Amino acid sequence: MAENGAKRIRLGMVGGGTGAFIGYVHRVAARIDGDYELVAGALSSRPEVARESGRNIGLAEDRIYTSYEEMARAEAARPDGIQAVSIVTPNHMHYGPAKAFLEAGIHVICDKPITSTLEDARNLSSIKPANGARFLLTHNYTGYPLIRQARDMVASGRLGKVRVVQAEYPQDWLTEPAAEDNKQASWRTDPSRSGAGGCIGDIGTHAYNLARFVTGLKTQAVSADLTAFVEGRQLDDNVNIMLRFEGGAKGMLWASQVAVGCENGLQLRVYGDKGGIEWRQDNPNYMWFTEFGKPKQLLTRGGAISGNASSTMNVRIPSGHPEGYLEAFATLYSQFAAIIRGDGAAYEGLLPTLEDGVEGMQFIVASVQSSQNDGKWTRLSDV
Amino acid sequence: MAENGAKRIRLGMVGGGTGAFIGYVHRVAARIDGDYELVAGALSSRPEVARESGRNIGLAEDRIYTSYEEMARAEAARPDGIQAVSIVTPNHMHYGPAKAFLEAGIHVICDKPITSTLEDARNLSSIKPANGARFLLTHNYTGYPLIRQARDMVASGRLGKVRVVQAEYPQDWLTEPAAEDNKQASWRTDPSRSGAGGCIGDIGTHAYNLARFVTGLKTQAVSADLTAFVEGRQLDDNVNIMLRFEGGAKGMLWASQVAVGCENGLQLRVYGDKGGIEWRQDNPNYMWFTEFGKPKQLLTRGGAISGNASSTMNVRIPSGHPEGYLEAFATLYSQFAAIIRGDGAAYEGLLPTLEDGVEGMQFIVASVQSSQNDGKWTRLSDV
Amino acid sequence: MAENGAKRIRLGMVGGGTGAFIGYVHRVAARIDGDYELVAGALSSRPEVARESGRNIGLAEDRIYTSYEEMARAEAARPDGIQAVSIVTPNHMHYGPAKAFLEAGIHVICDKPITSTLEDARNLSSIKPANGARFLLTHNYTGYPLIRQARDMVASGRLGKVRVVQAEYPQDWLTEPAAEDNKQASWRTDPSRSGAGGCIGDIGTHAYNLARFVTGLKTQAVSADLTAFVEGRQLDDNVNIMLRFEGGAKGMLWASQVAVGCENGLQLRVYGDKGGIEWRQDNPNYMWFTEFGKPKQLLTRGGAISGNASSTMNVRIPSGHPEGYLEAFATLYSQFAAIIRGDGAAYEGLLPTLEDGVEGMQFIVASVQSSQNDGKWTRLSDV
Amino acid sequence: MAENGAKRIRLGMVGGGTGAFIGYVHRVAARIDGDYELVAGALSSRPEVARESGRNIGLAEDRIYTSYEEMARAEAARPDGIQAVSIVTPNHMHYGPAKAFLEAGIHVICDKPITSTLEDARNLSSIKPANGARFLLTHNYTGYPLIRQARDMVASGRLGKVRVVQAEYPQDWLTEPAAEDNKQASWRTDPSRSGAGGCIGDIGTHAYNLARFVTGLKTQAVSADLTAFVEGRQLDDNVNIMLRFEGGAKGMLWASQVAVGCENGLQLRVYGDKGGIEWRQDNPNYMWFTEFGKPKQLLTRGGAISGNASSTMNVRIPSGHPEGYLEAFATLYSQFAAIIRGDGAAYEGLLPTLEDGVEGMQFIVASVQSSQNDGKWTRLSDV
Repeated sequence: MAENGAKRIRLGMVGGGTGAFIGYVHRVAARIDGDYELVAGALSSRPEVARESGRNIGLAEDRIYTSYEEMARAEAARPDGIQAVSIVTPNHMHYGPAKAFLEAGIHVICDKPITSTLEDARNLSSIKPANGARFLLTHNYTGYPLIRQARDMVASGRLGKVRVVQAEYPQDWLTEPAAEDNKQASWRTDPSRSGAGGCIGDIGTHAYNLARFVTGLKTQAVSADLTAFVEGRQLDDNVNIMLRFEGGAKGMLWASQVAVGCENGLQLRVYGDKGGIEWRQDNPNYMWFTEFGKPKQLLTRGGAISGNASSTMNVRIPSGHPEGYLEAFATLYSQFAAIIRGDGAAYEGLLPTLEDGVEGMQFIVASVQSSQNDGKWTRLSDV
Repeated sequence: MAENGAKRIRLGMVGGGTGAFIGYVHRVAARIDGDYELVAGALSSRPEVARESGRNIGLAEDRIYTSYEEMARAEAARPDGIQAVSIVTPNHMHYGPAKAFLEAGIHVICDKPITSTLEDARNLSSIKPANGARFLLTHNYTGYPLIRQARDMVASGRLGKVRVVQAEYPQDWLTEPAAEDNKQASWRTDPSRSGAGGCIGDIGTHAYNLARFVTGLKTQAVSADLTAFVEGRQLDDNVNIMLRFEGGAKGMLWASQVAVGCENGLQLRVYGDKGGIEWRQDNPNYMWFTEFGKPKQLLTRGGAISGNASSTMNVRIPSGHPEGYLEAFATLYSQFAAIIRGDGAAYEGLLPTLEDGVEGMQFIVASVQSSQNDGKWTRLSDV
Repeated sequence: MAENGAKRIRLGMVGGGTGAFIGYVHRVAARIDGDYELVAGALSSRPEVARESGRNIGLAEDRIYTSYEEMARAEAARPDGIQAVSIVTPNHMHYGPAKAFLEAGIHVICDKPITSTLEDARNLSSIKPANGARFLLTHNYTGYPLIRQARDMVASGRLGKVRVVQAEYPQDWLTEPAAEDNKQASWRTDPSRSGAGGCIGDIGTHAYNLARFVTGLKTQAVSADLTAFVEGRQLDDNVNIMLRFEGGAKGMLWASQVAVGCENGLQLRVYGDKGGIEWRQDNPNYMWFTEFGKPKQLLTRGGAISGNASSTMNVRIPSGHPEGYLEAFATLYSQFAAIIRGDGAAYEGLLPTLEDGVEGMQFIVASVQSSQNDGKWTRLSDV
Repeated sequence: MAENGAKRIRLGMVGGGTGAFIGYVHRVAARIDGDYELVAGALSSRPEVARESGRNIGLAEDRIYTSYEEMARAEAARPDGIQAVSIVTPNHMHYGPAKAFLEAGIHVICDKPITSTLEDARNLSSIKPANGARFLLTHNYTGYPLIRQARDMVASGRLGKVRVVQAEYPQDWLTEPAAEDNKQASWRTDPSRSGAGGCIGDIGTHAYNLARFVTGLKTQAVSADLTAFVEGRQLDDNVNIMLRFEGGAKGMLWASQVAVGCENGLQLRVYGDKGGIEWRQDNPNYMWFTEFGKPKQLLTRGGAISGNASSTMNVRIPSGHPEGYLEAFATLYSQFAAIIRGDGAAYEGLLPTLEDGVEGMQFIVASVQSSQNDGKWTRLSDV
């Protein structure tokens, strides 16, 4: 992984006040490879929290903002203003800042899902960003080296024609009703802030995006059965979906927040007519690959695999030394930095875009509609 | 495991000539605990094969038969005639022998699925066996000690109310068109011998039975998407199913014969509102158990688990020494032997019955119908 | 696995009364492949126990003996007398019966270690058996198909020149002082019945034998540190050994009965200058194989490995369906049966012999001596 | 993990020019938690490399040095001079810079082993640092949260009295003679730069340190058998060691650079009279814990464990999301930063010190001497 300390990008952040999980993750991701310097923030909608959070992480007083609109305006006007901004607010608060910064000519790094409604997503994708500002959607699991490797293997035909896709993302943290003061849980289970989907929007969309990223398949239709198991919960906490892809491949997707014993069990399995691959996030430095009729092979991150550019260009340390979630996240940041600097041609096509965000919303909406229609197969192109 | 060498049961076999896989498995299963003595057989419909096969395994000449009807008649008439018979023919040849031996008052041990049609299954279940002859359906995976343990844990409330069931059984041996001379493959992919379902009848039904055995849940309806990926194949080789159980639990079932890299990856995961369990056949001596909010525990066969009768009464060797597929199969045989001898009260309710067989056929037929109706939720009670 | 029901070998047993673990295991092993019929026994030195045990397993009254001497005499004299005998007594009671039956021309199957003293072992190996009677030492782990595969791979040069051997066998069942009534524990921790070694004789010798069986290396010398951690225990319960092999390979062997959390964690790892293999007993149907510079491969029993006679000739069921401890044990029995019948040429050299037993005793004695001499490197040829 | 962006520590680096592995790792570790700002460096002994490397990572021209002596002088004299320095040169080049910076009152972060000779280590430990400058030895594996947890569990008696310690660190990257241009390999296999030990100094010392860190045991003596398997190699590439600890515990340590198929298989297993723990670096977010007589538990980083300060204070992201090698390394950096800032009282006693460095050298020297004396038990206090 190249270090480009000499060309750091000035970064701002919207959301991510003290105690917010995903804002912290974005900051670490921005630091790991040394490509960014965080210099401004509207870290909370509550002015006091915004100010204290800004001070905690070392922002200058005059670059601690209490509204993103003000921040977009002020930073765009400064000669040393931010070049990029990270948006790490709850889903319903993605659209506003994303629009403001793109229109101000500032690159946007936005947490997923892109928005809380498909309409917002479509509106966002129709915006004309100023100065060629770019958009990165942080489907962070796509940054794992072996996921890149898997994508390359599918693309180069090592699996043959893909037939079967099994994606899952079980957790158990919402097994019981969330405590009143659980900030992570409260907005995620609130339709007004999270959007139409609960579990499906929070983690189902990750599993879905990963399957699409690796296989390159286009989804034709979904048949879904969404359930809220916990009494009083307004949004789904368990998601069963069958998938049909263009070209005939079939898939299943299971996501759950009530699967006791599962922490973040994101798993992807893809089987073609020549080979199969299997990968799990909880031990992400290893991936199974089987050529039909031969023994299973355990590919390791950076290890003895048929090397290729996209899988090894984001390996930091030797195989056997584990990299994890933060490094995969950092890879998106670093490669987006390269694109911003103009030396990221190798990463074009690898980083999740606005279009991926819209497609992800179509998946969520189609699944919710299918579930409401007793599992009717629902085309993504029809929502 | 008790040894009852002094009270061996005289056993016959229909099907299972030299080279037949499942007949061999049944014979080993019958031998392991020493409860049976195989003394008669109609091992093939081809007289020459029947005779040679009988000699190979040491049958007396006068008890090598070339038709099951003749065997049923002759053995029922002998004072030292067989007390039980194993039926290990292809699916469409289960009904005839099962009926003949039950009506002759001879206990029947029958491979799964019970028949090739739901009609045959229902007819069989309406027969009045002579002399109280009993019927065992060899859903062999239910004989694994930890599967018994799982069932006990669900029943005793260790998992709380079951919400989510994930069952799967991937294989890869039919990834390519089967060779002409592959006896195992040829009848399984032939509707006239296998029945309406391919993969679903061969292995989907095992995963389904296992889920039902462990959870005790009744299935309300299925929504299925069955596919034959290999060109020219008449029966499904990949099965995606969503399940709804009475009481509100939801499930998914995936079975495949084209999942490259999977050998016999039978897996069951069950999650309730208090706990979860996870078990895989390829390492069957271990099972994960998690109480919500506590560390995962790795339960081991015969190991430090909260002991209970049904899980430990079929453990042969100390934990850490692996038992496998044949031992699980043997447990069904031994416990059925105990029932035949009249000392098997502890096993009543644990061994798969005629009724389980009929329900399994309903599952197959409902799934096939659902798939033909574009995934329409189909009630088992409606087929 | 061939079934030879037509040519069953008449078998007797010394030791193995009701409740004895290893006797039961030997009986199951003898039954699995149908090559033996157990017809006589001196199952206990206590006459009442001998009689009741014999009846329980279905022996005829006149073939239930109360002394092995009587049994050897009587059976040798009968026209339908036993052809082979299994000796499953505590270690100090192996020598007497083994000598008696070999001299009576009856094949001997003997549990390990061969005797309780090296002197006994040497005396036994100098006996001239009548009628070409053969001797099988049940180092049962050598019966695992993948262990046979490993041996073949070493022999055929797949690993190159072997450099490093790591063998271990941790258990935890003697972590605390054994209960008075624990029959398994009491003789194993008693020098007068077990011999000079405790843990080293009970399980260390298994790990050692396995390493030798797979690598084919001859041991030059050992440096040992044996410990009895539990207060009052007379024999070692933890064994640390460094090994030097002829030709320059080095090894370590760890065996323990006080390693909390280990059930029967027998593990073997062998590394040569071209490749490495790793195998564990608790999941014995899988073995890692790595060619230097290539991804690790997971070989499976009966799976897609470079087929060869000795590894596949003892596979009973398809890969993915687990076989276990009893099947591996049964393989020794079946292949010894083939040798007895005269059709076992393929197994000569694969089954543990009297010579292996003597060498195993040398290992035990050399290790005990080394430990007593503060770890002095001790040649096996010097004891 | 707290972020202290407002109080960043000014950091320098000695060694770590472009292409050097461990220097890069130290820089990432310093960045992850945002506690340091790298502002000066003597990155190479070759002036051109030093300058280009400095520019690559964004150092100001006047703070790119070509000798560490100059850097120590100049930085100590600047009002904004570095507060700490990272020393990431080959082993024989640790002593000089460490002495210079400590005497200049600048905190030192030094890669392991502390020096290339025991004499250097002792000399270094006798230095009187100016201004209370502190010393951190980067035994980075001690930064893993579950290793901290393990240490706490031993200390609090969860394992009872420790009896058995098994530590290992196998790699395979030196299986063949290293290529001429392999910079990592060349100095590590060169006695003049690496010191008396090869494999033992490079990775054996890590395994040893980890065992000591977790158990808190003091080593009494070692018996070693060191081997150089690759022809022409001057230093050991495989290390077999038996350990005796004060109080009676026994251990084994295996380290290898020729174990084909092993990447960085650092593993620690500790067994006491009440419990046992098992941990591996290649999946470091999980640790087995068994209380005697109960099922094994899988503890997860940040998961449902009996919480305690030292294990959770360095967890960054929720359990199930893997952290890895770089995060563990970063934890040492961040906690050392806290000590430097004066708010690190909680970390005193957790971070490896000069004394640990000396003890580590004693281990290396005692092992080399023991091996030269045919495995004679050698006390650390005697070297």
